Amino acid sequence: MTDQKQTIQDLEKLREKAPLIHNITNYVVMNSTANALISIGASPVMAHAVEEMEEMVSIASALVINIGTLSDRWIEAMHLAGRTAKKKGIPVVLDPVGAGATSLRTNTTKDLIEQVGPHVISGNASEIMAIAQAGFTTKGVDSTASAEAALEAAKELASSTGSVVSVSGKTDYITDGNEVDKVTNGHHLMGKVTGTGCTATAITAAFASVNGKAMAAATEAMTVMGIAGEMAGEQADAPGTFYTRFLDALYKIDGEQIKKYWKQ
Amino acid sequence: MTDQKQTIQDLEKLREKAPLIHNITNYVVMNSTANALISIGASPVMAHAVEEMEEMVSIASALVINIGTLSDRWIEAMHLAGRTAKKKGIPVVLDPVGAGATSLRTNTTKDLIEQVGPHVISGNASEIMAIAQAGFTTKGVDSTASAEAALEAAKELASSTGSVVSVSGKTDYITDGNEVDKVTNGHHLMGKVTGTGCTATAITAAFASVNGKAMAAATEAMTVMGIAGEMAGEQADAPGTFYTRFLDALYKIDGEQIKKYWKQ
Amino acid sequence: MTDQKQTIQDLEKLREKAPLIHNITNYVVMNSTANALISIGASPVMAHAVEEMEEMVSIASALVINIGTLSDRWIEAMHLAGRTAKKKGIPVVLDPVGAGATSLRTNTTKDLIEQVGPHVISGNASEIMAIAQAGFTTKGVDSTASAEAALEAAKELASSTGSVVSVSGKTDYITDGNEVDKVTNGHHLMGKVTGTGCTATAITAAFASVNGKAMAAATEAMTVMGIAGEMAGEQADAPGTFYTRFLDALYKIDGEQIKKYWKQ
Repeated sequence: MTDQKQTIQDLEKLREKAPLIHNITNYVVMNSTANALISIGASPVMAHAVEEMEEMVSIASALVINIGTLSDRWIEAMHLAGRTAKKKGIPVVLDPVGAGATSLRTNTTKDLIEQVGPHVISGNASEIMAIAQAGFTTKGVDSTASAEAALEAAKELASSTGSVVSVSGKTDYITDGNEVDKVTNGHHLMGKVTGTGCTATAITAAFASVNGKAMAAATEAMTVMGIAGEMAGEQADAPGTFYTRFLDALYKIDGEQIKKYWKQ
Repeated sequence: MTDQKQTIQDLEKLREKAPLIHNITNYVVMNSTANALISIGASPVMAHAVEEMEEMVSIASALVINIGTLSDRWIEAMHLAGRTAKKKGIPVVLDPVGAGATSLRTNTTKDLIEQVGPHVISGNASEIMAIAQAGFTTKGVDSTASAEAALEAAKELASSTGSVVSVSGKTDYITDGNEVDKVTNGHHLMGKVTGTGCTATAITAAFASVNGKAMAAATEAMTVMGIAGEMAGEQADAPGTFYTRFLDALYKIDGEQIKKYWKQ
Repeated sequence: MTDQKQTIQDLEKLREKAPLIHNITNYVVMNSTANALISIGASPVMAHAVEEMEEMVSIASALVINIGTLSDRWIEAMHLAGRTAKKKGIPVVLDPVGAGATSLRTNTTKDLIEQVGPHVISGNASEIMAIAQAGFTTKGVDSTASAEAALEAAKELASSTGSVVSVSGKTDYITDGNEVDKVTNGHHLMGKVTGTGCTATAITAAFASVNGKAMAAATEAMTVMGIAGEMAGEQADAPGTFYTRFLDALYKIDGEQIKKYWKQ
């Protein structure tokens, strides 16, 4: 169950704190993720050099690990950053982009889950199902399975790993293995812009930096994303304009908008 | 000669199939290429790790190799992906960004042409002329030679390699060495946004995944690009707004628009 | 003291010459930097492979070195490119993104300053202060110190290195250690879009390619940036729309706009 009042308070806290969010993320979404984090009120930094991982993580309020465009040295940096964050009590959010599509992605995800133990695993239905070894291959980075179908896999994954699992889709599901939050806010054009899922992961990290309860933070993030999507959707009928308006909406969303669009 | 009816049918087929397009492309255009592919109806994935090349190519419907921001390991991945695609009968489109500007780019292009044998080589006039050893140095990644001047080079390149050659410019030329298709659709602001040529290459790969005739696919792609550019140009007088509207146009373009703007 | 007439003339010269600007820059801003350079009238190329550094720099009219997303091989390329540029008399502009946040960034910056000797060092207040060893740690890549507070550090840095130092902020300061130019043009939404500082650095390189006086070039660039920001700000109330309009403004800005918004 999300708490509307808590969501509003955490958004305000986020804007006041302007937390530094350290992203090790894929090349495709670096710019849009940075812009989304700035718009919501956080302070993004992108860094991947092994040589600076420990220092950079140490001054961050949350860490995003996104495996969208992998290579050897980056995987090494992800592990080092993840371990450092955990040691320092800094929340880690993992986005297993394309898990299931190749063994490199699936195995990297499994290794990161086992060795880092992220606070939140945030992906689409097919990625979550692939990780939970539901026995199918994803079709690239887009979801080919319904979020509903992945809910059981998500619960199992959460139970066996101790991570909160956040599954994006028409309805988003967030679970710790026992309880399940649902977010029904959103807009169909969110699926027509690259990196919306990656943005959701980064926004989840931003909320995790102000709310220590990983499940609440993930649900708040998905709610804010969904509402911003609806706000943008009112001013756009195609992906180019939608993306622009979505950034605007992340900047403009406040308590009033959250109350207006609240659906849960 | 492009076929209007075929172009419309292939666009519809593309949207129905939502083919996975595997891109090994440059950092500058990854985001815009992914967004353009989604807008036209394809499903993009960006991946460059040697370790996942064979698997990723194998689930793709077409492969883009774009040399815009080269480095050693990426070149290795390009070769592996290209060979795998050819072995599996998956169409390969090569964009020799900046060929002629440095020997690394010219040589990498030549090696890829000789060892992979792309179905389509898609570049601007100076790149195509540089590859065909027309004896001059390009000025970076922008075209400094007219597409017309490059047509002869393109024909020779196509004849000697067996690849279809697609030359972007005010008029686009697509040739297999014998026949030549011309596309006169387009808008001057397309040259004021980075990566428009790279987007054309990716859209060419998308059409190649639904039309086995490389020359028809390339011509269809350039036509759709040009018309989307004209649609965008009606709503924009500067590059920022133009880019946004261009993505919108790729999403909105349909049989009706193709008929309306058809010039050939 | 900036000269309005000179600024207008240099902008016109820039558009006439369309100088090739070679950028070794970070992944986050590659697309937006390329688009900004095209909009203002320059011709961007992004290249980082050690193998092509000397050739690429040699055909460029200015070089940007931006350390935003570092790794080993890139640092090597930065040094090689920088040395080549200096040898050939090509202006070099260094953006020490995140200097102070990690020792890798601070040390890389120091090494580049000592071994390359950039014509201009262009950063925000906290980066400039960190470089000048003012004894504090930056909070990632955003400025946490006022430009005013950094002015003394900038003067010292300029005096000891011989580089012109350009400090972005609400008021921008440009100094060679003796004289100080101030630019008060600008808009608060410039700080809400990622990479505005990186764009300023690239635009500085573009002006340096047409004006041999580094301090004048830097001041002209900051003035054009600030005015474009004000032009964009008149049509936007949030970061997504602002970014789009900012690119439009860089494309539209001309003598008339410069006169209209001139504040110095």
